[in-house]
Amino acid sequence: MTDTTTPVTVLGLGLMGRALARAFRTAGHPTTVWNRTPAAAEELVAGGAQRADTVAEAVRAARVIVVCLTDYQAVYAVLEQADLSGTVVVNLTSGDSAQARAAARWVEQRGGRYLDGAIMAVPPVIGTADAVLLHSGARADFDTAEAALAALGTLTYLGADHGLAALYDSAGLAMMWSVLNAWLQGTAMLRTAGVDAGTFAPFAQQMAAGVATWLPGYAEQIDNGAYPAEVAALSTDAASMTHLIEECEALGVNAELPRLFRAMADRAIAAGRGGEQYPVLITEFAKP
Amino acid sequence: MTDTTTPVTVLGLGLMGRALARAFRTAGHPTTVWNRTPAAAEELVAGGAQRADTVAEAVRAARVIVVCLTDYQAVYAVLEQADLSGTVVVNLTSGDSAQARAAARWVEQRGGRYLDGAIMAVPPVIGTADAVLLHSGARADFDTAEAALAALGTLTYLGADHGLAALYDSAGLAMMWSVLNAWLQGTAMLRTAGVDAGTFAPFAQQMAAGVATWLPGYAEQIDNGAYPAEVAALSTDAASMTHLIEECEALGVNAELPRLFRAMADRAIAAGRGGEQYPVLITEFAKP
Repeated sequence: MTDTTTPVTVLGLGLMGRALARAFRTAGHPTTVWNRTPAAAEELVAGGAQRADTVAEAVRAARVIVVCLTDYQAVYAVLEQADLSGTVVVNLTSGDSAQARAAARWVEQRGGRYLDGAIMAVPPVIGTADAVLLHSGARADFDTAEAALAALGTLTYLGADHGLAALYDSAGLAMMWSVLNAWLQGTAMLRTAGVDAGTFAPFAQQMAAGVATWLPGYAEQIDNGAYPAEVAALSTDAASMTHLIEECEALGVNAELPRLFRAMADRAIAAGRGGEQYPVLITEFAKP
Repeated sequence: MTDTTTPVTVLGLGLMGRALARAFRTAGHPTTVWNRTPAAAEELVAGGAQRADTVAEAVRAARVIVVCLTDYQAVYAVLEQADLSGTVVVNLTSGDSAQARAAARWVEQRGGRYLDGAIMAVPPVIGTADAVLLHSGARADFDTAEAALAALGTLTYLGADHGLAALYDSAGLAMMWSVLNAWLQGTAMLRTAGVDAGTFAPFAQQMAAGVATWLPGYAEQIDNGAYPAEVAALSTDAASMTHLIEECEALGVNAELPRLFRAMADRAIAAGRGGEQYPVLITEFAKP
Protein backbone atom coordinates (compact mmCIF):
# COMPACT_ATOMS: atom_id res chain seq x y z
CA MET A 1 0.00 0.00 0.00
CA THR A 2 1.80 3.14 -1.16
CA ASP A 3 0.24 6.58 -1.32
CA THR A 4 2.66 8.90 -3.07
CA THR A 5 0.83 11.96 -1.87
CA THR A 6 1.82 11.58 1.82
CA PRO A 7 4.15 14.39 2.85
CA VAL A 8 7.01 13.24 5.05
CA THR A 9 9.77 14.97 7.00
CA VAL A 10 13.21 13.50 7.68
CA LEU A 11 15.22 14.81 10.63
CA GLY A 12 18.87 13.77 10.50
CA LEU A 13 20.76 13.33 7.24
CA GLY A 14 23.61 11.02 8.04
CA LEU A 15 24.33 8.15 5.66
CA MET A 16 21.11 6.38 6.67
CA GLY A 17 18.97 9.54 6.90
CA ARG A 18 19.95 10.54 3.37
CA ALA A 19 19.09 7.04 2.10
CA LEU A 20 15.67 7.31 3.75
CA ALA A 21 14.96 10.76 2.27
CA ARG A 22 16.09 9.59 -1.16
CA ALA A 23 13.71 6.60 -1.03
CA PHE A 24 10.79 8.87 -0.04
CA ARG A 25 11.56 11.18 -2.97
CA THR A 26 11.98 8.28 -5.39
CA ALA A 27 8.52 7.03 -4.39
CA GLY A 28 7.12 10.51 -5.05
CA HIS A 29 6.40 11.67 -1.49
CA PRO A 30 6.70 15.41 -0.85
CA THR A 31 9.80 15.28 1.37
CA THR A 32 11.08 17.94 3.77
CA VAL A 33 14.54 17.48 5.23
CA TRP A 34 16.48 19.04 8.09
CA ASN A 35 20.00 18.46 9.37
CA ARG A 36 22.09 20.18 12.03
CA THR A 37 24.69 20.97 9.35
CA PRO A 38 22.64 22.04 6.29
CA ALA A 39 25.19 20.96 3.65
CA ALA A 40 24.11 17.34 4.04
CA ALA A 41 20.80 18.26 2.37
CA GLU A 42 22.25 19.56 -0.89
CA GLU A 43 22.06 16.39 -2.97
CA LEU A 44 18.52 15.78 -1.69
CA VAL A 45 17.37 19.29 -2.54
CA ALA A 46 18.75 18.77 -6.07
CA GLY A 47 16.56 15.65 -6.15
CA GLY A 48 13.41 17.59 -5.26
CA ALA A 49 13.38 17.58 -1.45
CA GLN A 50 12.54 20.75 0.50
CA ARG A 51 15.13 21.93 2.99
CA ALA A 52 13.77 23.40 6.22
CA ASP A 53 15.86 25.99 8.03
CA THR A 54 14.62 24.96 11.47
CA VAL A 55 13.32 21.82 13.12
CA ALA A 56 10.05 23.63 13.87
CA GLU A 57 9.56 24.43 10.19
CA ALA A 58 10.43 20.86 9.18
CA VAL A 59 7.92 19.38 11.64
CA ARG A 60 5.16 21.76 10.43
CA ALA A 61 5.63 20.48 6.86
CA ALA A 62 4.32 16.94 7.43
CA ARG A 63 2.36 14.77 9.79
CA VAL A 64 4.79 11.84 9.52
CA ILE A 65 8.16 12.84 11.03
CA VAL A 66 10.95 10.32 10.46
CA VAL A 67 13.86 10.73 12.88
CA CYS A 68 17.27 9.16 12.25
CA LEU A 69 19.92 10.62 14.54
CA THR A 70 23.05 9.45 16.34
CA ASP A 71 21.40 8.58 19.64
CA TYR A 72 18.39 9.31 21.85
CA GLN A 73 20.06 12.32 23.44
CA ALA A 74 20.13 13.92 19.99
CA VAL A 75 16.50 12.89 19.41
CA TYR A 76 15.34 14.82 22.49
CA ALA A 77 17.58 17.81 21.73
CA VAL A 78 16.12 18.06 18.22
CA LEU A 79 12.45 17.29 18.90
CA GLU A 80 12.17 19.77 21.76
CA GLN A 81 12.62 22.52 19.19
CA ALA A 82 9.23 21.77 17.59
CA ASP A 83 5.52 21.53 18.32
CA LEU A 84 4.75 17.81 18.02
CA SER A 85 0.98 18.03 18.39
CA GLY A 86 -0.80 16.13 15.64
CA THR A 87 2.38 14.42 14.39
CA VAL A 88 3.41 10.79 14.24
CA VAL A 89 7.10 10.66 15.15
CA VAL A 90 8.71 7.58 13.57
CA ASN A 91 11.99 7.15 15.39
CA LEU A 92 14.50 5.02 13.50
CA THR A 93 17.42 6.03 15.71
CA SER A 94 19.29 3.04 17.19
CA GLY A 95 18.57 2.43 20.85
CA ASP A 96 17.29 -0.09 23.35
CA SER A 97 13.76 -1.03 24.34
CA ALA A 98 13.73 1.14 27.48
CA GLN A 99 14.80 4.19 25.45
CA ALA A 100 12.03 3.55 22.92
CA ARG A 101 9.40 3.24 25.64
CA ALA A 102 10.61 6.42 27.37
CA ALA A 103 10.65 8.35 24.10
CA ALA A 104 7.06 7.28 23.42
CA ARG A 105 5.92 8.74 26.76
CA TRP A 106 7.92 11.94 26.09
CA VAL A 107 6.39 12.49 22.63
CA GLU A 108 2.88 11.66 23.85
CA GLN A 109 3.24 14.23 26.66
CA ARG A 110 3.92 16.81 23.91
CA GLY A 111 0.78 15.90 22.00
CA GLY A 112 2.41 13.71 19.38
CA ARG A 113 2.15 10.04 18.58
CA TYR A 114 5.23 7.80 18.61
CA LEU A 115 6.16 4.81 16.48
CA ASP A 116 9.48 3.11 17.03
CA GLY A 117 11.42 1.46 14.27
CA ALA A 118 14.55 -0.59 13.67
CA ILE A 119 16.21 -0.75 10.29
CA MET A 120 17.65 -4.18 9.55
CA ALA A 121 19.50 -3.08 6.44
CA VAL A 122 22.46 -1.02 5.30
CA PRO A 123 21.84 2.33 3.55
CA PRO A 124 22.37 1.14 -0.07
CA VAL A 125 19.49 -1.35 0.31
CA ILE A 126 16.95 1.23 1.56
CA GLY A 127 14.11 1.61 -0.93
CA THR A 128 14.20 -2.05 -1.99
CA ALA A 129 12.18 -5.00 -0.66
CA ASP A 130 15.41 -6.37 0.87
CA ALA A 131 15.38 -3.57 3.45
CA VAL A 132 13.46 -4.94 6.42
CA LEU A 133 12.06 -2.39 8.88
CA LEU A 134 10.55 -3.44 12.19
CA HIS A 135 7.95 -1.20 13.82
CA SER A 136 6.28 -1.11 17.21
CA GLY A 137 3.71 1.21 18.74
CA ALA A 138 -0.04 1.68 18.46
CA ARG A 139 -1.47 -0.03 15.40
CA ALA A 140 -3.32 3.17 14.42
CA ASP A 141 -0.02 5.09 14.32
CA PHE A 142 1.59 2.42 12.18
CA ASP A 143 -1.41 2.60 9.84
CA THR A 144 -1.00 6.39 9.59
CA ALA A 145 2.71 6.18 8.78
CA GLU A 146 2.59 3.07 6.60
CA ALA A 147 1.74 4.87 3.37
CA ALA A 148 5.00 6.79 3.58
CA LEU A 149 7.18 4.12 5.24
CA ALA A 150 6.34 1.57 2.54
CA ALA A 151 8.74 3.50 0.31
CA LEU A 152 11.65 2.36 2.49
CA GLY A 153 11.38 -1.41 2.20
CA THR A 154 9.51 -4.35 3.71
CA LEU A 155 7.63 -3.32 6.84
CA THR A 156 6.88 -5.59 9.77
CA TYR A 157 4.49 -4.45 12.49
CA LEU A 158 5.38 -6.16 15.77
CA GLY A 159 2.86 -4.90 18.31
CA ALA A 160 1.79 -2.06 20.59
CA ASP A 161 4.72 -2.22 23.05
CA HIS A 162 7.10 0.48 21.78
CA GLY A 163 10.10 -1.56 22.96
CA LEU A 164 9.46 -4.48 20.58
CA ALA A 165 11.32 -3.14 17.54
CA ALA A 166 14.52 -2.65 19.57
CA LEU A 167 14.14 -6.09 21.17
CA TYR A 168 13.62 -7.91 17.87
CA ASP A 169 16.49 -5.94 16.37
CA SER A 170 18.84 -6.97 19.21
CA ALA A 171 17.67 -10.57 19.02
CA GLY A 172 18.24 -10.52 15.27
CA LEU A 173 21.78 -9.24 15.74
CA ALA A 174 22.46 -11.98 18.29
CA MET A 175 21.43 -14.50 15.63
CA MET A 176 23.55 -12.75 13.00
CA TRP A 177 26.74 -12.83 15.08
CA SER A 178 26.02 -16.39 16.21
CA VAL A 179 25.71 -17.71 12.67
CA LEU A 180 28.80 -15.77 11.57
CA ASN A 181 30.85 -16.96 14.55
CA ALA A 182 29.82 -20.59 14.13
CA TRP A 183 30.78 -20.34 10.47
CA LEU A 184 34.16 -18.81 11.41
CA GLN A 185 34.67 -21.57 13.99
CA GLY A 186 34.01 -24.26 11.38
CA THR A 187 36.08 -22.45 8.77
CA ALA A 188 39.05 -22.26 11.16
CA MET A 189 38.70 -26.00 11.88
CA LEU A 190 38.43 -27.02 8.23
CA ARG A 191 41.32 -24.83 7.15
CA THR A 192 43.62 -26.92 9.35
CA ALA A 193 42.83 -29.77 6.90
CA GLY A 194 43.43 -27.56 3.85
CA VAL A 195 39.73 -27.01 3.09
CA ASP A 196 39.21 -23.43 1.94
CA ALA A 197 36.47 -21.16 3.25
CA GLY A 198 34.60 -21.24 -0.06
CA THR A 199 34.31 -25.03 0.04
CA PHE A 200 32.97 -25.08 3.59
CA ALA A 201 30.57 -22.11 3.27
CA PRO A 202 27.72 -23.89 1.39
CA PHE A 203 27.75 -26.66 4.02
CA ALA A 204 27.60 -24.09 6.83
CA GLN A 205 24.79 -22.28 5.02
CA GLN A 206 22.79 -25.49 4.69
CA MET A 207 23.33 -26.39 8.35
CA ALA A 208 22.21 -22.97 9.59
CA ALA A 209 19.11 -22.97 7.41
CA GLY A 210 18.35 -26.57 8.34
CA VAL A 211 18.59 -26.05 12.10
CA ALA A 212 16.52 -22.86 11.73
CA THR A 213 13.58 -24.97 10.51
CA TRP A 214 13.49 -26.72 13.92
CA LEU A 215 12.86 -23.49 15.83
CA PRO A 216 9.05 -23.28 15.54
CA GLY A 217 8.75 -26.85 16.83
CA TYR A 218 11.23 -26.27 19.63
CA ALA A 219 9.38 -23.06 20.54
CA GLU A 220 6.31 -25.18 21.36
CA GLN A 221 8.34 -26.92 24.06
CA ILE A 222 9.19 -23.55 25.63
CA ASP A 223 5.63 -22.25 25.43
CA ASN A 224 4.40 -25.51 26.95
CA GLY A 225 7.15 -25.49 29.59
CA ALA A 226 7.88 -29.18 28.91
CA TYR A 227 11.01 -30.47 27.21
CA PRO A 228 10.69 -34.20 26.48
CA ALA A 229 13.84 -35.59 24.81
CA GLU A 230 12.18 -36.53 21.52
CA VAL A 231 15.38 -36.18 19.48
CA ALA A 232 18.20 -36.14 22.03
CA ALA A 233 18.83 -35.38 25.69
CA LEU A 234 20.82 -32.33 26.75
CA SER A 235 23.40 -34.61 28.38
CA THR A 236 24.09 -36.16 24.94
CA ASP A 237 24.64 -32.68 23.51
CA ALA A 238 26.99 -31.88 26.39
CA ALA A 239 29.08 -34.98 25.68
CA SER A 240 29.34 -33.95 22.00
CA MET A 241 30.33 -30.43 23.10
CA THR A 242 33.23 -31.92 25.04
CA HIS A 243 34.37 -33.70 21.87
CA LEU A 244 34.13 -30.43 19.95
CA ILE A 245 36.24 -28.63 22.57
CA GLU A 246 38.84 -31.40 22.45
CA GLU A 247 38.88 -31.35 18.65
CA CYS A 248 39.42 -27.56 18.61
CA GLU A 249 42.21 -27.82 21.16
CA ALA A 250 43.87 -30.62 19.19
CA LEU A 251 43.64 -28.59 15.98
CA GLY A 252 45.03 -25.48 17.66
CA VAL A 253 41.96 -23.32 16.97
CA ASN A 254 39.98 -21.16 19.38
CA ALA A 255 37.67 -23.15 21.68
CA GLU A 256 35.97 -20.36 23.66
CA LEU A 257 32.64 -20.66 21.87
CA PRO A 258 32.16 -24.43 22.48
CA ARG A 259 33.45 -23.92 26.05
CA LEU A 260 30.70 -21.40 26.70
CA PHE A 261 28.11 -23.74 25.16
CA ARG A 262 29.33 -26.49 27.43
CA ALA A 263 29.36 -24.27 30.54
CA MET A 264 25.72 -23.30 30.02
CA ALA A 265 24.68 -26.90 29.32
CA ASP A 266 26.58 -28.08 32.40
CA ARG A 267 24.70 -25.63 34.60
CA ALA A 268 21.35 -26.90 33.34
CA ILE A 269 22.51 -30.50 33.83
CA ALA A 270 23.64 -29.66 37.38
CA ALA A 271 20.11 -28.31 37.92
CA GLY A 272 18.75 -31.73 36.96
CA ARG A 273 17.72 -31.01 33.35
CA GLY A 274 20.21 -33.34 31.57
CA GLY A 275 17.50 -35.78 30.50
CA GLU A 276 15.42 -33.12 28.79
CA GLN A 277 15.78 -31.66 25.30
CA TYR A 278 17.97 -28.71 24.27
CA PRO A 279 15.31 -25.96 24.54
CA VAL A 280 15.30 -26.57 28.32
CA LEU A 281 18.39 -24.31 28.27
CA ILE A 282 15.94 -21.38 28.16
CA THR A 283 16.06 -21.74 31.96
CA GLU A 284 19.71 -20.64 31.83
CA PHE A 285 19.29 -17.93 29.18
CA ALA A 286 16.46 -16.38 31.18
CA LYS A 287 18.77 -15.79 34.20
CA PRO A 288 20.88 -12.64 34.68
CA MET B 1 22.73 -45.47 -7.39
CA THR B 2 21.54 -48.48 -5.43
CA ASP B 3 22.56 -52.05 -6.10
CA THR B 4 20.47 -54.30 -3.91
CA THR B 5 22.78 -57.26 -4.47
CA THR B 6 25.69 -55.82 -2.43
CA PRO B 7 26.21 -57.86 0.73
CA VAL B 8 26.95 -55.75 3.79
CA THR B 9 27.98 -56.48 7.36
CA VAL B 10 27.08 -54.33 10.36
CA LEU B 11 29.22 -54.56 13.50
CA GLY B 12 27.58 -53.00 16.53
CA LEU B 13 23.82 -53.08 17.09
CA GLY B 14 23.08 -50.20 19.38
CA LEU B 15 20.15 -47.93 18.58
CA MET B 16 21.98 -46.50 15.55
CA GLY B 17 23.52 -49.80 14.43
CA ARG B 18 20.12 -51.48 14.41
CA ALA B 19 18.68 -48.59 12.35
CA LEU B 20 21.51 -49.00 9.83
CA ALA B 21 21.03 -52.76 9.53
CA ARG B 22 17.27 -52.31 9.16
CA ALA B 23 17.79 -49.82 6.32
CA PHE B 24 20.15 -52.21 4.51
CA ARG B 25 17.60 -54.99 4.80
CA THR B 26 14.74 -52.78 3.68
CA ALA B 27 16.75 -51.89 0.57
CA GLY B 28 17.25 -55.60 -0.10
CA HIS B 29 20.96 -55.96 0.68
CA PRO B 30 22.06 -59.34 2.06
CA THR B 31 22.91 -58.16 5.59
CA THR B 32 25.05 -59.88 8.19
CA VAL B 33 25.03 -58.53 11.73
CA TRP B 34 27.15 -59.00 14.83
CA ASN B 35 26.90 -57.57 18.32
CA ARG B 36 28.85 -58.23 21.53
CA THR B 37 25.57 -59.22 23.17
CA PRO B 38 23.74 -61.33 20.56
CA ALA B 39 20.20 -60.54 21.76
CA ALA B 40 20.34 -57.15 20.04
CA ALA B 41 20.22 -58.97 16.68
CA GLU B 42 16.94 -60.80 17.25
CA GLU B 43 14.57 -58.32 15.62
CA LEU B 44 16.95 -57.98 12.66
CA VAL B 45 17.20 -61.73 12.17
CA ALA B 46 13.41 -61.88 12.14
CA GLY B 47 13.60 -59.27 9.37
CA GLY B 48 15.91 -61.40 7.24
CA ALA B 49 19.40 -60.48 8.48
CA GLN B 50 22.02 -63.16 9.13
CA ARG B 51 23.52 -63.25 12.61
CA ALA B 52 27.23 -64.07 12.77
CA ASP B 53 28.54 -65.77 15.90
CA THR B 54 31.96 -64.16 15.65
CA VAL B 55 33.42 -60.96 14.25
CA ALA B 56 35.64 -63.04 11.96
CA GLU B 57 32.59 -64.77 10.49
CA ALA B 58 30.73 -61.46 10.08
CA VAL B 59 33.66 -59.86 8.25
CA ARG B 60 34.01 -62.86 5.91
CA ALA B 61 30.36 -62.44 4.84
CA ALA B 62 30.76 -59.14 3.01
CA ARG B 63 33.28 -56.80 1.46
CA VAL B 64 31.61 -53.67 2.90
CA ILE B 65 31.91 -53.72 6.71
CA VAL B 66 29.91 -50.99 8.48
CA VAL B 67 31.09 -50.33 12.02
CA CYS B 68 28.99 -48.43 14.55
CA LEU B 69 30.32 -48.84 18.09
CA THR B 70 30.58 -46.78 21.27
CA ASP B 71 34.07 -45.41 20.64
CA TYR B 72 37.32 -46.04 18.79
CA GLN B 73 38.66 -48.26 21.56
CA ALA B 74 35.75 -50.62 20.87
CA VAL B 75 36.42 -50.38 17.11
CA TYR B 76 39.99 -51.65 17.53
CA ALA B 77 38.97 -54.33 20.04
CA VAL B 78 36.37 -55.68 17.61
CA LEU B 79 38.21 -55.37 14.30
CA GLU B 80 41.36 -57.08 15.58
CA GLN B 81 39.29 -60.27 15.81
CA ALA B 82 38.99 -60.48 11.99
CA ASP B 83 41.02 -60.67 8.81
CA LEU B 84 40.42 -57.32 7.11
CA SER B 85 42.18 -58.04 3.82
CA GLY B 86 40.03 -57.18 0.85
CA THR B 87 37.40 -55.34 2.93
CA VAL B 88 36.27 -51.73 2.96
CA VAL B 89 35.69 -50.78 6.59
CA VAL B 90 33.12 -47.98 6.79
CA ASN B 91 33.47 -46.59 10.30
CA LEU B 92 30.44 -44.60 11.46
CA THR B 93 31.55 -44.56 15.11
CA SER B 94 31.67 -41.04 16.58
CA GLY B 95 35.17 -39.66 16.99
CA ASP B 96 37.51 -36.86 16.06
CA SER B 97 39.58 -36.31 12.94
CA ALA B 98 42.82 -37.61 14.46
CA GLN B 99 41.10 -40.84 15.50
CA ALA B 100 39.71 -41.30 11.97
CA ARG B 101 43.13 -40.78 10.39
CA ALA B 102 44.80 -43.20 12.82
CA ALA B 103 42.12 -45.84 12.24
CA ALA B 104 42.66 -45.55 8.48
CA ARG B 105 46.37 -46.33 8.89
CA TRP B 106 45.58 -49.21 11.25
CA VAL B 107 43.08 -50.83 8.85
CA GLU B 108 45.38 -50.32 5.85
CA GLN B 109 48.22 -52.03 7.72
CA ARG B 110 45.93 -55.04 8.04
CA GLY B 111 45.19 -55.16 4.31
CA GLY B 112 41.82 -53.44 4.43
CA ARG B 113 40.57 -50.13 3.06
CA TYR B 114 39.04 -47.51 5.34
CA LEU B 115 36.25 -45.02 4.77
CA ASP B 116 35.23 -42.72 7.58
CA GLY B 117 31.70 -41.49 8.04
CA ALA B 118 29.64 -39.18 10.23
CA ILE B 119 25.90 -39.59 10.58
CA MET B 120 24.10 -36.24 10.84
CA ALA B 121 20.77 -37.77 11.77
CA VAL B 122 18.97 -39.56 14.57
CA PRO B 123 18.18 -43.28 14.24
CA PRO B 124 14.48 -42.94 13.22
CA VAL B 125 15.49 -40.94 10.14
CA ILE B 126 18.01 -43.51 8.84
CA GLY B 127 16.86 -44.94 5.51
CA THR B 128 15.25 -41.69 4.37
CA ALA B 129 16.71 -38.86 2.27
CA ASP B 130 16.67 -36.65 5.40
CA ALA B 131 19.49 -38.69 6.90
CA VAL B 132 22.70 -36.98 5.80
CA LEU B 133 25.88 -39.04 5.94
CA LEU B 134 29.30 -37.46 5.40
CA HIS B 135 32.13 -39.62 4.11
CA SER B 136 35.86 -39.16 3.73
CA GLY B 137 38.61 -41.40 2.43
CA ALA B 138 39.85 -42.53 -0.97
CA ARG B 139 37.30 -41.88 -3.70
CA ALA B 140 37.64 -45.49 -4.96
CA ASP B 141 36.66 -46.81 -1.52
CA PHE B 142 33.65 -44.52 -1.39
CA ASP B 143 32.67 -45.76 -4.85
CA THR B 144 32.92 -49.37 -3.66
CA ALA B 145 30.77 -48.76 -0.59
CA GLU B 146 28.30 -46.34 -2.16
CA ALA B 147 25.98 -49.01 -3.58
CA ALA B 148 25.28 -50.25 -0.07
CA LEU B 149 25.52 -46.95 1.83
CA ALA B 150 22.94 -45.30 -0.43
CA ALA B 151 20.32 -47.32 1.47
CA LEU B 152 21.03 -45.22 4.58
CA GLY B 153 20.23 -41.72 3.34
CA THR B 154 21.81 -38.84 1.44
CA LEU B 155 25.55 -39.37 1.01
CA THR B 156 28.09 -36.59 0.74
CA TYR B 157 31.66 -37.41 -0.26
CA LEU B 158 34.04 -34.82 1.21
CA GLY B 159 37.52 -35.82 0.04
CA ALA B 160 40.45 -38.17 0.52
CA ASP B 161 41.58 -36.93 3.97
CA HIS B 162 40.00 -39.45 6.36
CA GLY B 163 39.60 -36.71 8.99
CA LEU B 164 37.17 -34.61 6.95
CA ALA B 165 33.93 -36.33 7.95
CA ALA B 166 34.66 -35.78 11.66
CA LEU B 167 35.70 -32.16 11.03
CA TYR B 168 32.58 -31.30 9.03
CA ASP B 169 30.46 -33.08 11.63
CA SER B 170 32.02 -31.03 14.46
CA ALA B 171 31.68 -27.81 12.48
CA GLY B 172 28.05 -28.66 11.78
CA LEU B 173 27.37 -29.22 15.47
CA ALA B 174 28.99 -25.86 16.29
CA MET B 175 26.53 -24.26 13.86
CA MET B 176 23.64 -26.20 15.34
CA TRP B 177 24.31 -25.12 18.92
CA SER B 178 25.04 -21.55 17.80
CA VAL B 179 21.70 -21.18 16.04
CA LEU B 180 19.87 -22.79 18.95
CA ASN B 181 21.64 -20.61 21.53
CA ALA B 182 21.04 -17.39 19.59
CA TRP B 183 17.38 -18.35 19.31
CA LEU B 184 17.23 -19.04 23.08
CA GLN B 185 18.94 -15.70 23.74
CA GLY B 186 16.37 -13.84 21.64
CA THR B 187 13.51 -15.86 23.08
CA ALA B 188 14.62 -14.99 26.63
CA MET B 189 14.79 -11.30 25.65
CA LEU B 190 11.38 -11.22 23.96
CA ARG B 191 9.69 -13.12 26.76
CA THR B 192 10.49 -10.20 29.10
CA ALA B 193 8.09 -8.21 26.88
CA GLY B 194 5.44 -10.92 26.95
CA VAL B 195 6.22 -12.26 23.46
CA ASP B 196 5.95 -16.03 23.44
CA ALA B 197 8.53 -18.35 21.92
CA GLY B 198 6.20 -19.37 19.10
CA THR B 199 5.78 -15.77 17.97
CA PHE B 200 9.52 -15.09 17.90
CA ALA B 201 10.60 -18.40 16.31
CA PRO B 202 9.67 -17.62 12.66
CA PHE B 203 11.60 -14.34 12.91
CA ALA B 204 14.65 -16.14 14.31
CA GLN B 205 14.34 -18.76 11.58
CA GLN B 206 14.24 -16.09 8.88
CA MET B 207 17.25 -14.27 10.36
CA ALA B 208 19.36 -17.44 10.56
CA ALA B 209 18.52 -18.48 7.01
CA GLY B 210 19.07 -14.92 5.76
CA VAL B 211 22.50 -14.49 7.35
CA ALA B 212 23.46 -17.96 6.10
CA THR B 213 23.09 -16.72 2.52
CA TRP B 214 25.95 -14.25 3.15
CA LEU B 215 28.46 -16.99 3.96
CA PRO B 216 29.65 -17.88 0.44
CA GLY B 217 30.36 -14.19 -0.25
CA TYR B 218 32.08 -13.67 3.08
CA ALA B 219 34.13 -16.83 2.43
CA GLU B 220 35.67 -15.11 -0.59
CA GLN B 221 37.11 -12.48 1.74
CA ILE B 222 38.76 -15.18 3.83
CA ASP B 223 40.12 -17.06 0.84
CA ASN B 224 41.45 -13.77 -0.56
CA GLY B 225 42.84 -12.72 2.82
CA ALA B 226 41.34 -9.23 2.38
CA TYR B 227 38.41 -7.88 4.38
CA PRO B 228 37.25 -4.54 2.96
CA ALA B 229 34.32 -3.08 4.96
CA GLU B 230 31.79 -3.25 2.12
CA VAL B 231 28.80 -3.55 4.45
CA ALA B 232 30.05 -2.51 7.90
CA ALA B 233 33.28 -2.27 9.85
CA LEU B 234 34.01 -4.63 12.75
CA SER B 235 34.16 -1.61 15.10
CA THR B 236 30.50 -0.85 14.22
CA ASP B 237 29.56 -4.44 15.09
CA ALA B 238 31.46 -4.14 18.38
CA ALA B 239 29.52 -0.99 19.32
CA SER B 240 26.24 -2.81 18.58
CA MET B 241 27.43 -5.76 20.68
CA THR B 242 27.87 -3.40 23.62
CA HIS B 243 24.27 -2.27 23.19
CA LEU B 244 23.13 -5.90 23.10
CA ILE B 245 25.03 -6.64 26.31
CA GLU B 246 23.51 -3.60 28.01
CA GLU B 247 20.03 -4.55 26.79
CA CYS B 248 20.41 -8.10 28.15
CA GLU B 249 21.66 -6.78 31.50
CA ALA B 250 18.78 -4.30 31.70
CA LEU B 251 16.27 -7.05 30.90
CA GLY B 252 17.79 -9.40 33.47
CA VAL B 253 18.66 -12.13 30.96
CA ASN B 254 21.95 -13.96 30.48
CA ALA B 255 24.60 -11.88 28.66
CA GLU B 256 27.48 -14.36 28.42
CA LEU B 257 27.04 -15.04 24.71
CA PRO B 258 27.17 -11.37 23.58
CA ARG B 259 30.02 -10.79 26.05
CA LEU B 260 32.06 -13.50 24.36
CA PHE B 261 31.23 -12.04 20.93
CA ARG B 262 32.41 -8.66 22.14
CA ALA B 263 35.61 -10.04 23.72
CA MET B 264 36.64 -11.69 20.45
CA ALA B 265 35.81 -8.59 18.41
CA ASP B 266 37.73 -6.41 20.89
CA ARG B 267 40.83 -8.54 20.48
CA ALA B 268 40.73 -8.16 16.69
CA ILE B 269 40.16 -4.42 17.08
CA ALA B 270 43.12 -4.20 19.48
CA ALA B 271 45.15 -5.94 16.76
CA GLY B 272 44.22 -3.09 14.39
CA ARG B 273 41.41 -4.82 12.41
CA GLY B 274 38.49 -2.61 13.54
CA GLY B 275 38.11 -0.95 10.14
CA GLU B 276 37.75 -4.26 8.31
CA GLN B 277 34.67 -6.43 7.81
CA TYR B 278 33.39 -9.14 10.17
CA PRO B 279 35.09 -12.16 8.50
CA VAL B 280 38.45 -10.65 9.60
CA LEU B 281 37.61 -12.33 12.94
CA ILE B 282 38.90 -15.56 11.36
CA THR B 283 42.27 -14.30 12.64
CA GLU B 284 40.97 -14.78 16.20
CA PHE B 285 39.14 -18.07 15.58
CA ALA B 286 42.28 -19.56 14.03
CA LYS B 287 44.27 -19.02 17.26
CA PRO B 288 44.45 -21.59 20.09
